[in-house]
Amino acid sequence: MERKQLSKTKKEVIKIYKNSKMVFIEKEFETMELTDFGLGDLYNIGLGIIIYVNTERVCAKELALAPYQICPQRHLHPDIKGYAGKEETFRCRWGEVYLYISGPETKNIKAKISKRYKDRFTVFHEIILKPGEQYTLETNTWYWFQGGEQGAVLSEFSTYSYDEGDIFYGKKIKRIAVDN
Amino acid sequence: MERKQLSKTKKEVIKIYKNSKMVFIEKEFETMELTDFGLGDLYNIGLGIIIYVNTERVCAKELALAPYQICPQRHLHPDIKGYAGKEETFRCRWGEVYLYISGPETKNIKAKISKRYKDRFTVFHEIILKPGEQYTLETNTWYWFQGGEQGAVLSEFSTYSYDEGDIFYGKKIKRIAVDN
Repeated sequence: MERKQLSKTKKEVIKIYKNSKMVFIEKEFETMELTDFGLGDLYNIGLGIIIYVNTERVCAKELALAPYQICPQRHLHPDIKGYAGKEETFRCRWGEVYLYISGPETKNIKAKISKRYKDRFTVFHEIILKPGEQYTLETNTWYWFQGGEQGAVLSEFSTYSYDEGDIFYGKKIKRIAVDN
Repeated sequence: MERKQLSKTKKEVIKIYKNSKMVFIEKEFETMELTDFGLGDLYNIGLGIIIYVNTERVCAKELALAPYQICPQRHLHPDIKGYAGKEETFRCRWGEVYLYISGPETKNIKAKISKRYKDRFTVFHEIILKPGEQYTLETNTWYWFQGGEQGAVLSEFSTYSYDEGDIFYGKKIKRIAVDN
């Protein structure tokens, strides 16, 4: 991604974090991870991540989503490299999050998916999270989520976040930072 | 504690949470745990706790402290009942927190301790946490903390919170809810 575009996107993400009224120190914005999951389309598929803590056992972070930006469909990684499967809770702090998991398909889902990505999503059981609402994912389930029309900030509380080990649905997906 | 006093204290704690601008749903305030650690002096020694998640592996919660209210000196519990020692990170969200751990004693600490509790504290290495600042405790250390003059809200991210197993310094301390 071009440096100029990246700088613009970063400013937008910081604005979303500031909308949430949660307090961050400047260094956290500077070292924030912007990821496009290797798809080169950060505007549609990506996250702005601030990591509070990520040890071998505990992980807590904030995720910012721009309006209608998607975190692509993935699977809570199973036992890998000696680690037990991941446990994950999402809590909406600001905006609105459309979360999709395995289960009866919701009619007329709120999410918007660009045609070019339609084949990357297979689960459509909708859970809408508004500020103060949260959801704990069961292990071994596919899930994906999207920010609402204003975007969203959500907290993730989980066991060790071994992102390189996440299993994404579809080809060419990996979580890598675009800016380092 | 008398029901009337408890109701008043609860309102004060909710006000502190609202000051933080973090969003909670009403039910979280209703089911919030007020603990006086069994000392019967919630005004000076206590916490108002909102638990987001507490599984066998991950725990995330918010703690509210009234002005100069203290969370008493305790020890991160070591291996107990098959669980490895606790890992714990505190992040200040609002107000100011005076955190004390083992280490060189800080002169003129900011905390205020009522005479009747002076013998309950033995570590005085001061770490001041302002909004957006955080600290991860090493295992096997004593620690205690106090809210600043406005009180404080702080997040705790940790491994399984097995509070009954916490080791407190001094007699007659246990974490029990005063309202149920």
